[in-house]
Amino acid sequence: MTPKITRFLAEQQPATPCLVVDLDVVGAHYRALHDALPEAKIYYAIKANPAPAILDRLVGLGSSFDAASIAEIRMCLDAGATPDRISYGNTLKKAEWIREAHDLGISLFVFDSIEELEKLAKHAPGARVFCRLAVENEGADWPLSRKFGTTLGNARALMLRARELGLKPYGLSFHVGSQQTGVAAYDHAIAKAAGLYHDLRAQGVNLQMLNLGGGFPTHYRENVPSVQDFADTIHASLRTHFPDGAPEILLEPGRYMVGQSGVVSSEVILVSRRGGAVTDPRWVYLDIGRFGGLAETEGEAIRYTFRTSRDSDDASRSPCVVAGPSCDGVDIMYEKNRIPLPDSLECGDRVEILATGAYVSTYASVGFNGFPPLAEYYI
Amino acid sequence: MTPKITRFLAEQQPATPCLVVDLDVVGAHYRALHDALPEAKIYYAIKANPAPAILDRLVGLGSSFDAASIAEIRMCLDAGATPDRISYGNTLKKAEWIREAHDLGISLFVFDSIEELEKLAKHAPGARVFCRLAVENEGADWPLSRKFGTTLGNARALMLRARELGLKPYGLSFHVGSQQTGVAAYDHAIAKAAGLYHDLRAQGVNLQMLNLGGGFPTHYRENVPSVQDFADTIHASLRTHFPDGAPEILLEPGRYMVGQSGVVSSEVILVSRRGGAVTDPRWVYLDIGRFGGLAETEGEAIRYTFRTSRDSDDASRSPCVVAGPSCDGVDIMYEKNRIPLPDSLECGDRVEILATGAYVSTYASVGFNGFPPLAEYYI
Repeated sequence: MTPKITRFLAEQQPATPCLVVDLDVVGAHYRALHDALPEAKIYYAIKANPAPAILDRLVGLGSSFDAASIAEIRMCLDAGATPDRISYGNTLKKAEWIREAHDLGISLFVFDSIEELEKLAKHAPGARVFCRLAVENEGADWPLSRKFGTTLGNARALMLRARELGLKPYGLSFHVGSQQTGVAAYDHAIAKAAGLYHDLRAQGVNLQMLNLGGGFPTHYRENVPSVQDFADTIHASLRTHFPDGAPEILLEPGRYMVGQSGVVSSEVILVSRRGGAVTDPRWVYLDIGRFGGLAETEGEAIRYTFRTSRDSDDASRSPCVVAGPSCDGVDIMYEKNRIPLPDSLECGDRVEILATGAYVSTYASVGFNGFPPLAEYYI
Repeated sequence: MTPKITRFLAEQQPATPCLVVDLDVVGAHYRALHDALPEAKIYYAIKANPAPAILDRLVGLGSSFDAASIAEIRMCLDAGATPDRISYGNTLKKAEWIREAHDLGISLFVFDSIEELEKLAKHAPGARVFCRLAVENEGADWPLSRKFGTTLGNARALMLRARELGLKPYGLSFHVGSQQTGVAAYDHAIAKAAGLYHDLRAQGVNLQMLNLGGGFPTHYRENVPSVQDFADTIHASLRTHFPDGAPEILLEPGRYMVGQSGVVSSEVILVSRRGGAVTDPRWVYLDIGRFGGLAETEGEAIRYTFRTSRDSDDASRSPCVVAGPSCDGVDIMYEKNRIPLPDSLECGDRVEILATGAYVSTYASVGFNGFPPLAEYYI
């Protein structure tokens, strides 16, 4: 909750629910990551929040971009990024999307299977390709490992095949899982990738790049390691596993870059103890829920911090179940991990949900239960 | 997959992913339910699919409507439903939404807590109100019971209070859970509500209505009881528990009314065994997933049927993991319950997902990973 956002909410009193993003926070995170890992190229994972204002700011700061779709590639180009600063970072691409990206000048593509590699050879001839390895996601609140990435053995075979297919075997990537709170995960993954990197060099396949993916966490409720902690681990790991000098390093931060920049402003629709007894659980229903943008509360995976208009040092609090506004029974955000909220909280009160800049705005449904998509303000 | 949808897909070849809905199927389901329970008033739960074409068809057939929000109320009015045919069926309502509904002539409101009842008394004075009871959701694939409904004892106190507040205590409701496949759930719930109904009559509170909610299932993969099976159980239960004659009966079908009417047409983006070995699981990635509309595959709760362009009687098949197109690791639809798909299936093939008329179109995200909302056709 930056002073700029606090002032905006106080002065503008925007209708709820809405997301307010302080662009200066995005810029500060870009610079902090750049300062901690100055040798790395930062490819912002725009799926975290593709708002034009964010892309504009990052283009100006010199960022590159990790795009998940042809639409995201177009958004980056519209914001002024040149094609050499864009990576098509989704292992899942239709042939027509590859062709269009290739025609737009994109020359860096990820893959994790022979089927995708053959599509790239056919529709983006000569492109630079990097292979995504499956690595452990232990320590991540939002794991990604089951759906993406291949084995070391298969990656080795695929890189040799890439050369035969006329592609440029360019590098290796991995993803330690989103909201990764353990610095060691990067060391383990770098060690794994480095082994294959050197092995392929011995085969005459001279890779030039290692893509460390994203995963750097946002501060929600629990403290997380600083970006400097991650940088220290990464630097030490690169020195150990690439004693003759590290390759070009890419990073794909999404959540880290924009998470802290946003606040969702919402309103309490109802506070009730439905059993009617004071011993019944207190339910707080907000005008935003899992289908209005807070999709990452699924399984209570991402645990946001709440601020209310009734907060004060001496406010008595008790744990509440927090749920969304729809008629859907799964639209419950926190039930196992109840949120301590002021006992005076009631219908009509404002509730701010912090660190909601990432993976919120575009998750919102088009109109579930008739509720409109989340309004957004970039200041 | 009706002949009309088959013809539309063959002739129009619409870009995928898209949802195609055969309005005649909606009409047939309305009539089947009306024929099975002719004494009941049908309030279509428009959250299942609020497309204007569906509302138009149902207005013409004489349906009433269960709205989850003020926006849904406006949609019903726009489609030509008069206010007396609309119930504000969400227990979660802001004061301003209640006022607006009241001003629009809506006079039937649900509640399940003293807090909501007091809001109704203040902002919709004199309205007819019904109290939602919590009932067992055993047998439902998409349960609703934790978030909504109150106890018999509290409902009794609230109905007495409603009268004191100048409201019309009109009825009781319950919801046995969505995609309810056990007919007995209705008997248990009716028995519970009937006890309170008679008790309140003895207190001089003459309720006139019993709202049986929705829950009637759609045929996905497993066979489900017919609407006649449900009607027989409901009729028997009403005779048993209301020996002097049943009150006005309301039904709120959503999934039942539109589920069978829709087909999602999608395209295979990639088929891969990422480990590279034939023993590795085969993953089929489609251009629609959990964030493109198929949200009810969360936890593999709703299990759709797939038809592919490679289907034939002698096609060899093997179980596949089925996932969506995004970079999100949770965008996996079926992994525990793998789908047997033809071994010849490959990138670019069409896959039709059946019985997707309900709870699909409006669940789609506004633009997650840059993918546009689901295109819809009503024919």
